[in-house]
Amino acid sequence: MMKRVTYLLTLMLLPLMAMGQEVKSPNGQVAVKFYLESGRPTYEMSYQNRSVVKPSHLGLELAKDKHASKGLRETSLMDGFVIKDTKTSTFDETWKPVWGEVAHIRNHYNELAVTLDQPATKREMIIRFRVYDEGMGLRYEFPQQDSLVYFTIKEEHTQFAMTGDHTAWWLPGDYDTQEQETQESKLSEIRSRFHDAVNWNNSSVAVFSPTGVQTALQMKTKDGLYINIHEAACVDYATMHLNLDDKNFVFESWLTPDATGMKGYMQTPCQTPWRTVMVSDDARTMLSSKMIYNLNEPCKLEDTSWIHPTKYCGVWWEMIVGKSSWNYTDEYPSIKLDQIDWTKVKPNGRHAANTAKVKKYIDFAAANGLQEVLVEGWNVGWEDWANHWKDYVFDFVTPYPDFDIKYLNDYAHSKGVKLMMHHETSSSTQNYERHLPEAFALMKKYGYDAIKGGYVGDIIPRGDHHFSQSMNNHYLYVIKEAAKHHIMVNQHEAVRPTGLCRTYPNLIGNESARGTEYEAFGGSRPDHTVILPFTRLQGGPMDYTPGILETQLKTWSDNPNYVHTTLVGQLALYLTMYSPLQMAADLPENYAKYDDAFQFIRDVACDWDDSKYLEAEPARYITVARKAKGTNNWFVGGKCNEDGHRSTVKLDFLDKGCKYEATIYADAKNASFDKNPKAYVITKRTVKRGDVLKLTEAPGGGFAISIIAQ
Amino acid sequence: MMKRVTYLLTLMLLPLMAMGQEVKSPNGQVAVKFYLESGRPTYEMSYQNRSVVKPSHLGLELAKDKHASKGLRETSLMDGFVIKDTKTSTFDETWKPVWGEVAHIRNHYNELAVTLDQPATKREMIIRFRVYDEGMGLRYEFPQQDSLVYFTIKEEHTQFAMTGDHTAWWLPGDYDTQEQETQESKLSEIRSRFHDAVNWNNSSVAVFSPTGVQTALQMKTKDGLYINIHEAACVDYATMHLNLDDKNFVFESWLTPDATGMKGYMQTPCQTPWRTVMVSDDARTMLSSKMIYNLNEPCKLEDTSWIHPTKYCGVWWEMIVGKSSWNYTDEYPSIKLDQIDWTKVKPNGRHAANTAKVKKYIDFAAANGLQEVLVEGWNVGWEDWANHWKDYVFDFVTPYPDFDIKYLNDYAHSKGVKLMMHHETSSSTQNYERHLPEAFALMKKYGYDAIKGGYVGDIIPRGDHHFSQSMNNHYLYVIKEAAKHHIMVNQHEAVRPTGLCRTYPNLIGNESARGTEYEAFGGSRPDHTVILPFTRLQGGPMDYTPGILETQLKTWSDNPNYVHTTLVGQLALYLTMYSPLQMAADLPENYAKYDDAFQFIRDVACDWDDSKYLEAEPARYITVARKAKGTNNWFVGGKCNEDGHRSTVKLDFLDKGCKYEATIYADAKNASFDKNPKAYVITKRTVKRGDVLKLTEAPGGGFAISIIAQ
Repeated sequence: MMKRVTYLLTLMLLPLMAMGQEVKSPNGQVAVKFYLESGRPTYEMSYQNRSVVKPSHLGLELAKDKHASKGLRETSLMDGFVIKDTKTSTFDETWKPVWGEVAHIRNHYNELAVTLDQPATKREMIIRFRVYDEGMGLRYEFPQQDSLVYFTIKEEHTQFAMTGDHTAWWLPGDYDTQEQETQESKLSEIRSRFHDAVNWNNSSVAVFSPTGVQTALQMKTKDGLYINIHEAACVDYATMHLNLDDKNFVFESWLTPDATGMKGYMQTPCQTPWRTVMVSDDARTMLSSKMIYNLNEPCKLEDTSWIHPTKYCGVWWEMIVGKSSWNYTDEYPSIKLDQIDWTKVKPNGRHAANTAKVKKYIDFAAANGLQEVLVEGWNVGWEDWANHWKDYVFDFVTPYPDFDIKYLNDYAHSKGVKLMMHHETSSSTQNYERHLPEAFALMKKYGYDAIKGGYVGDIIPRGDHHFSQSMNNHYLYVIKEAAKHHIMVNQHEAVRPTGLCRTYPNLIGNESARGTEYEAFGGSRPDHTVILPFTRLQGGPMDYTPGILETQLKTWSDNPNYVHTTLVGQLALYLTMYSPLQMAADLPENYAKYDDAFQFIRDVACDWDDSKYLEAEPARYITVARKAKGTNNWFVGGKCNEDGHRSTVKLDFLDKGCKYEATIYADAKNASFDKNPKAYVITKRTVKRGDVLKLTEAPGGGFAISIIAQ
Repeated sequence: MMKRVTYLLTLMLLPLMAMGQEVKSPNGQVAVKFYLESGRPTYEMSYQNRSVVKPSHLGLELAKDKHASKGLRETSLMDGFVIKDTKTSTFDETWKPVWGEVAHIRNHYNELAVTLDQPATKREMIIRFRVYDEGMGLRYEFPQQDSLVYFTIKEEHTQFAMTGDHTAWWLPGDYDTQEQETQESKLSEIRSRFHDAVNWNNSSVAVFSPTGVQTALQMKTKDGLYINIHEAACVDYATMHLNLDDKNFVFESWLTPDATGMKGYMQTPCQTPWRTVMVSDDARTMLSSKMIYNLNEPCKLEDTSWIHPTKYCGVWWEMIVGKSSWNYTDEYPSIKLDQIDWTKVKPNGRHAANTAKVKKYIDFAAANGLQEVLVEGWNVGWEDWANHWKDYVFDFVTPYPDFDIKYLNDYAHSKGVKLMMHHETSSSTQNYERHLPEAFALMKKYGYDAIKGGYVGDIIPRGDHHFSQSMNNHYLYVIKEAAKHHIMVNQHEAVRPTGLCRTYPNLIGNESARGTEYEAFGGSRPDHTVILPFTRLQGGPMDYTPGILETQLKTWSDNPNYVHTTLVGQLALYLTMYSPLQMAADLPENYAKYDDAFQFIRDVACDWDDSKYLEAEPARYITVARKAKGTNNWFVGGKCNEDGHRSTVKLDFLDKGCKYEATIYADAKNASFDKNPKAYVITKRTVKRGDVLKLTEAPGGGFAISIIAQ
């Protein structure tokens, strides 16, 4: 591991005045200033001397402490502070991710740590700032101390005062779902557009404020600054939303509560996650920044040799589309796992995860270089799994009678393929945890090494929320337990990531946003996938499940919906939506229809030595070139919104003097996502460094290029 | 197993009128009548033609069902019913408990099952009555049906209309604690006495109504009827309290909510626990009845050979009294288990569970025929275990550095003794479940076969309550998992039992009431232990931990409190407080001071072939004779309240023609619990069937007799 570490500690005892303390990024362009305003912690942030965050307060409101002595019971960590001391330091280290967009990541920042005293309570709190060239992170730290041992957070009040009525790409703040379509509006328009932005059909809707939004929140100022607010390293803490004071354009943190309504149970020494603000005048910096990862702890797994980026296919899309079913029988209004004899129930004839079908998927994977085959619906319990707050909903170990788990795993292994385990929890987390040891044992017995997990529906323990401190602890518990068994985890509907995959790289994916499945539920706007990399992907990769080449579902099913990209646009997603886990989500028979285009999915890598964002504008277009891990091959992808896009790709990243063969998958002239999605042109040509490719992306389209060194 | 079963099903299609259907007990003395009153299910109950329960409504209030079609969303199971059919049957079976007060239990009842239709919703519900000679049970059953699949119970409205202002022995209804002192008052006085009955110092107080009380509720009518209301087989359901309409003396069920405020999550087919009313004109029948057990399912464990009644001692009382500590260090305001190096912390010098001390307890147990030694405080985490809502509070596998777990178990086994595991959960149940597999593995590795568990403090998942459906499921989950490992369970602070030990006889004990520990916290009234057998013990045995022969704690500690019985009264508890698990709770050095009295504890059995309640009056006195399992020896105990009691024991239960040596442990003439507790007289004499013993019990005293066949 390459490491260049210089760690300087500078103790500066400041006079106790409100002059403030400033820390700048290594290149000097980002500056953060901290001071007390009448005892209230306050910061501001600038970029190239332009204000990014106006003076904003920091602090935490605590719940009454019934164990504290009288008078102190209601004292929050909001004000009444004096500065005890400040420390600045600098840090510069380059680390090597287990998988990723690049082979090496530089973590270079200047730090300011301010120790605050609250004399009335004799409490101490540290606010730590880390300032990077592309933004900053701040967090609260609570050292071990007699006067602050356990405390309950009623609310965190971290402010982000914006300088104006920025354009924002936002999701309604919600304690349980993050699968809405992104809204693009001025900050001042959030309130009026909020109601329509909520998917009220989702039974788990838990919105809390008509100006509450989620992070990562991407914004753009009138004068062309890109600003992104998110969080990093959300561990043992509730997920942060942002509530907007839309008169003054001040965001304030709004944490996710648990069933009691409280938002955090803390024991010193401890700290909050990092609250991050990224800023640049170049949208590409938003995508290439590794600041969120850098603010997470280094990898805690000693052995990571078993973690591998993976392309996979699976028994999934045909059920999403409605052609077949996860469940095995339709015979009963509900089932009880401990009271049913599966050999005697009447099959519904539509159960997808049967031995014959899975065998075909295994053959397909083996023939096309896909390492794993996901099988959803393999295990008993799908008859009434969703939306009943049912406790014992799955046991995670019992296959349906038509799924021969031993035979299929043996068969897959004989073909060099693995099955991917599926653990839908139905959000009955206690039940899942009770069965985890046996579930892991079953996986090891049959040779599974990866789980796709799911958290659909209301949480059990009842009253809790998907993004609370306790649920965040649950997700991480599963990840850590899986790591002990050398099992990779891809959690769907779990909390949006905050860079934890640096620390636990067996977390190889999350859904945690609106995935491809919504194309079968009515569709997602064409700009959806050119927003996600600015927002959802900031914290970690998304298992978006691209590759639906048969974009018109009615051609093979009764589903009237269509995918809101062109066929080529689907190919582009393997590059623009970075993930070490990439599904070829369509059916083998659909790939057979478009075998020449499918060749790109066969070829494309999912782990990279380098990535270069060539073009980017939120909700408009993204173009990226990536160098496949351990090779000299490049893959370039471009994706755009419903307006189409003309892209100019300068191949100045190729090796000098080296010849490459490029295969270009482009939208045909009259292609469009809605009217003519499957019109594409594949061309091959020899290219070299310095060549320029001009590409026209259709409305909702894109392009994909493989550039293979000769 | 002896079985005499006659099961008769009689289908009686009644005309749909409100005439009612009556079912009587096998001896005809108890009668229950059911009918609809304007579509509302209604019942009444009598004993020897005297009204016991006046006409009372039955029904359940459901939460709005968001999945139900409009109009049906708010329809409860309260009214609008018609009788579809009724069935009567009779049942008579004798079964053999794994352990108990008697070798065989007869389960003899007449049954009435009424199937009700609610035409507006097309829902069906069955109300089933089982009528015994000593009372009745009723429950609601919900068959599988399309129009009632999942439902949420907002409240159960089962009424018990009393005939007058009875005397009651009651505890304040509370969702989290059942350790108050029992109040004796008229029903009309509950409201005015409620506030003083609550222990407001307990941080978990969760009372809900000024006339809310707990079950088992023992009452006595002016004309000498004893009535007891409780429940049986509380499985996958919230614990019932009773709320009194004190104008009309009508009790109504009041279930324990979870964090959402809802009270039950049901999936058909399912049923409620039995709601029981015992009645007799003889208080002894309240104690000898096995109706609660009979209303539970037969044993579900195939192999019960590993379950054994146990006398034990342990490292416990000296910590309760305050002389030593559970925790190992006082160095930190709090600890984090994953961040502490126990070999480097500073011991506080007061840690009781150290190798040398435990070794002494093992020697003591071996020398005195005690099978096990409980060790509390053996495992890390006691530094800040209580009242912080701390999640990762114990790991259940790591001993403190001064507790040599391997050596001590080996040493114990070499002496024919076992150590008893202690699992205090601090009510952090998720954490406990996460560690259970490793905790069981540790137990099996070292040879433990029993757990004393604890649930002190507020529940995690936060917002839940000790007696909710989900927590009741947790307790049973632990019992069932333990059974898989052949481990016996004794749960403290868990839900009060409802006879589940019939079904899972590895549940060998519960605290679930005010135990002996309160004698060190200020004391319990002398009548406390002559109330508990009528109330708390109805559902199962209590690990009361008697045997404190040094009743005056200040003689060996700084604790100013004293035990509110005489020394002999402590001996009597081994008989009057039936349990297959009996502790000799005092310190070995205290037993050495009273070795002649301790002989009774050495001798007394804890499993029985027969038990005869000779005298009983709630809160006044209880006298019982028990025949030790597999022997011809009898043990007789009498316990009384602060008024003392003169007892006449006719030895007509002894075998004719057999000679016995009786050792009589009696209060000395001037003995009393407060002024002269340790004055006792031990006499020996030969006795035979028909002899009569006259015994004088001192205020707060009692007597104990061993009668050994020669």
